[in-house]
Amino acid sequence: MSFTYKYPRPAVAVDMVIFGYDTKKLRVLLIRRGIEPFFDCWALPGGFVNPDESLDDAARRELAEETGLDQIFMEQLYSFGSVDRDPRERVISVCYYALIDLLGTTPKGASDAAEARWFNIDDLPTLAFDHNEILNFSLERIRGKLSYQPVGFELLPRLFTLSQLQRLYEVILGHALDKRNFRKKLMKMDLLLATDEYETNVSHRAAQFYCFDRPKYQKLVKEGFAFDL
Amino acid sequence: MSFTYKYPRPAVAVDMVIFGYDTKKLRVLLIRRGIEPFFDCWALPGGFVNPDESLDDAARRELAEETGLDQIFMEQLYSFGSVDRDPRERVISVCYYALIDLLGTTPKGASDAAEARWFNIDDLPTLAFDHNEILNFSLERIRGKLSYQPVGFELLPRLFTLSQLQRLYEVILGHALDKRNFRKKLMKMDLLLATDEYETNVSHRAAQFYCFDRPKYQKLVKEGFAFDL
Repeated sequence: MSFTYKYPRPAVAVDMVIFGYDTKKLRVLLIRRGIEPFFDCWALPGGFVNPDESLDDAARRELAEETGLDQIFMEQLYSFGSVDRDPRERVISVCYYALIDLLGTTPKGASDAAEARWFNIDDLPTLAFDHNEILNFSLERIRGKLSYQPVGFELLPRLFTLSQLQRLYEVILGHALDKRNFRKKLMKMDLLLATDEYETNVSHRAAQFYCFDRPKYQKLVKEGFAFDL
Repeated sequence: MSFTYKYPRPAVAVDMVIFGYDTKKLRVLLIRRGIEPFFDCWALPGGFVNPDESLDDAARRELAEETGLDQIFMEQLYSFGSVDRDPRERVISVCYYALIDLLGTTPKGASDAAEARWFNIDDLPTLAFDHNEILNFSLERIRGKLSYQPVGFELLPRLFTLSQLQRLYEVILGHALDKRNFRKKLMKMDLLLATDEYETNVSHRAAQFYCFDRPKYQKLVKEGFAFDL
């Protein structure tokens, strides 16, 4: 089979940057390529868009095929289209990203991926194609978003301590935050409701549990806020 | 000439949403199509990406070809890829947007565009393809941005009154804002420097001129702020 067109056409791919959070580290899901080019190299999961599927559908299908992960809400990030980003031919990549809970996810490589694995964001291999660039772009976007949108709050349990919330910020940002300052700013956002519950069975002073003020949370997701990190 | 591939390929286009600001109205630049499909219909300027140019370059080239506008800083917005968005064949569109000063711009149609014209955002024709959807998506994005980034402040003169700034917000948002509330929030942002200069030759009480605190402005562009509109 072959397909003929009057003008040259690029191939169109989707690539997915899936960040995973586990209260200690921010990780990213990579696959080891089982095909050329960049055979055996680590890369973002991704692949070509089929003629009968939307970009969103292609992203979901490729992620599931190559890593076994599905039911993940991804957001379209950016399209990368430098002329020479693929050594074979012109390929335009529409990129998606997501931030998910590492707990309970065990990716496995399949299809064009020999292996799928979570990598610590601070300890990444050199990736195939321009995937290091795409990954950095995504990381900047997600870190930038922290200052004007509640990012990743879904990764916390329903009731959480302020330390857990600070830890979430620190893991995504990749650096420590001043505790007093963080709490002061947090309270100004007026997003949390204190509960009557406290930690139990802890050796230190039991911390109070908080939950989100849901209506306020939804409003902030929609309208944004300022959180000067 | 023809080009043959092993797998079917979509065509890749760029489409540009250029918003124009003239202190009274928010407008958008449209072209009247001089070719099929949607011959004679209004549409966003745009066209196919050449094999030897990046997506950004294609956007600049097509905008210049179809409307005569160049030197416009556009930002990539989103890629639209529904399977049936073009009646001819599969076309994926990478969209760009910009907000520019209407003063001094006189678009003229050329290339595939029979005509180019600014339309009031409140009075749009039905557009070709899914261009109404793309336009609405862009409008939402630019309005949403107002709440966490200084948008379009470059469209103001170096020295401006608070009324001019409020007008900019109102024109982009498409509705009036309460003056006292607006000023209160504005002052909280701590972004403006009062000057010693006042309007002259006005019948009402002369308003004071302000300018931006540039370092603070740059910081806000980078980090975001909250402006609860």
